[in-house]
Amino acid sequence: MTIENISANKSFGGWHKQYSHQSKTLNCNMQFAIYLPPQVSNGEKVPVLYWLSGLTCTDENFMQKAGAQRIASMLGVAIVAPDTSPRGEDVTNDEAYDLGQGAGFYVNATQAPWNRHYQMYDYVVNELPELVESLFPVTSKRSISGHSMGGHGALTIGMLNPERYCSISAFSPICNPINSPWGEKAFTTYLGKDKTTWQNHDASELMRRATNFVPTKVDQGGADNFLVEQLKPEALEAAAKVNDYPLELTLHEGYDHSYYFISSFIEQHIRFHAVHLTK
Amino acid sequence: MTIENISANKSFGGWHKQYSHQSKTLNCNMQFAIYLPPQVSNGEKVPVLYWLSGLTCTDENFMQKAGAQRIASMLGVAIVAPDTSPRGEDVTNDEAYDLGQGAGFYVNATQAPWNRHYQMYDYVVNELPELVESLFPVTSKRSISGHSMGGHGALTIGMLNPERYCSISAFSPICNPINSPWGEKAFTTYLGKDKTTWQNHDASELMRRATNFVPTKVDQGGADNFLVEQLKPEALEAAAKVNDYPLELTLHEGYDHSYYFISSFIEQHIRFHAVHLTK
Repeated sequence: MTIENISANKSFGGWHKQYSHQSKTLNCNMQFAIYLPPQVSNGEKVPVLYWLSGLTCTDENFMQKAGAQRIASMLGVAIVAPDTSPRGEDVTNDEAYDLGQGAGFYVNATQAPWNRHYQMYDYVVNELPELVESLFPVTSKRSISGHSMGGHGALTIGMLNPERYCSISAFSPICNPINSPWGEKAFTTYLGKDKTTWQNHDASELMRRATNFVPTKVDQGGADNFLVEQLKPEALEAAAKVNDYPLELTLHEGYDHSYYFISSFIEQHIRFHAVHLTK
Repeated sequence: MTIENISANKSFGGWHKQYSHQSKTLNCNMQFAIYLPPQVSNGEKVPVLYWLSGLTCTDENFMQKAGAQRIASMLGVAIVAPDTSPRGEDVTNDEAYDLGQGAGFYVNATQAPWNRHYQMYDYVVNELPELVESLFPVTSKRSISGHSMGGHGALTIGMLNPERYCSISAFSPICNPINSPWGEKAFTTYLGKDKTTWQNHDASELMRRATNFVPTKVDQGGADNFLVEQLKPEALEAAAKVNDYPLELTLHEGYDHSYYFISSFIEQHIRFHAVHLTK
């Protein structure tokens, strides 16, 4: 296994670092970023929050724009941000921003030619944590969060693996992708036309039938352009109600889909995860 | 005077907004950003911190990456970020990243063809504050800060106009541009070969002969690639010592030239300015 450190920036007493590695799950070279808080320099092991980004993003958007390092540094939490899809010249792609590279949707593709590389679910659930836990001074306590497509990823991956994650959160997630244009397009392409295979990657479906509950926090901007057509938090709220699922969902008037919204509330999310990661 | 609002994002209870306007000083269309903290919605007028960015930047880098809105929101300070040069197809440019568009160096060019548009000193000192103070609920209390080329801009503009600014700060400023490759190239191009005209735009020269002191805070990363050849904080420190100038200069081991450094210490800068802006 080769892994290469490609950048390092001191940040709030800790370090933001980017790595490149050959992923056996995705069958291509991948880049990810990690924020290691200052506590690790005292020989301490820290828990990890995984952050899944939205459409068109890489490992960089969250690390540069969310302002999460300040509070992660204070509370002693590492943050890992993977890329949003397999990458490279020989990786199948599409011209649209919402399919192919930058739009992996955190599922394992079953349809050719996508299934050769698009195995983001396995990468995020298994390969990446294994790599992170073998290389860095971190514990195996994990939480998961994300934005938009990455919010969908965090909710579904968290609920499908309740034993692996202490807490889940999301900003502006695609809550009901089987009933949204983004989700329908991606799931048709990656998973095929049989909609029964889609259910397992729909946060509202999973929340309705969950039996192991993971504490879950969702924040949504009220002025988000994608709210009505794509995100549908009301479906998630209804599912939580039916199943008594511990969901804290808050609508914030005036906020949009951007990192200006995420940065305004990221402190609350990191504090929420820190409580569950240190229980 | 036409001014157009081109974006608005709610952020920490306040608003980040971008505007486009025709600048009579720069003779072209310009874009700037303003962060208005939540205090203005109560009818309050707030003081303004002007932020000058570095080479290649626009109004967006600081607003997206510095994480300043959290503390500006808390303390009730507006932040205005202009672009770093005149812009447009008919504005003289150069292929290099350190000359022409994105590299205005906050001086008034005297040399043709640059002098037709490159009047960033006058734009920042006069036209922009006049516009801001006529349009937004702000007081005429101003402070000024910046990074790298913008740190040079903040220091020189602040010291040349001690009656207009309550405090000055800079991250990784070009402290002695008349003795740095970036400064020599820009000043030769914009101001001409006569070096006596350069002195007035050199922070170390100005600090050595200042008579009206403005409280000034400078932070510099110890692992900054540009430290030795381009930035030269030791020249500024020596000038302050000779003249008993109230300079707080701190070297931070391990930090580089990036926004990871700026975001780590921006809270201290906003707090520093807030003290002087509310005196």
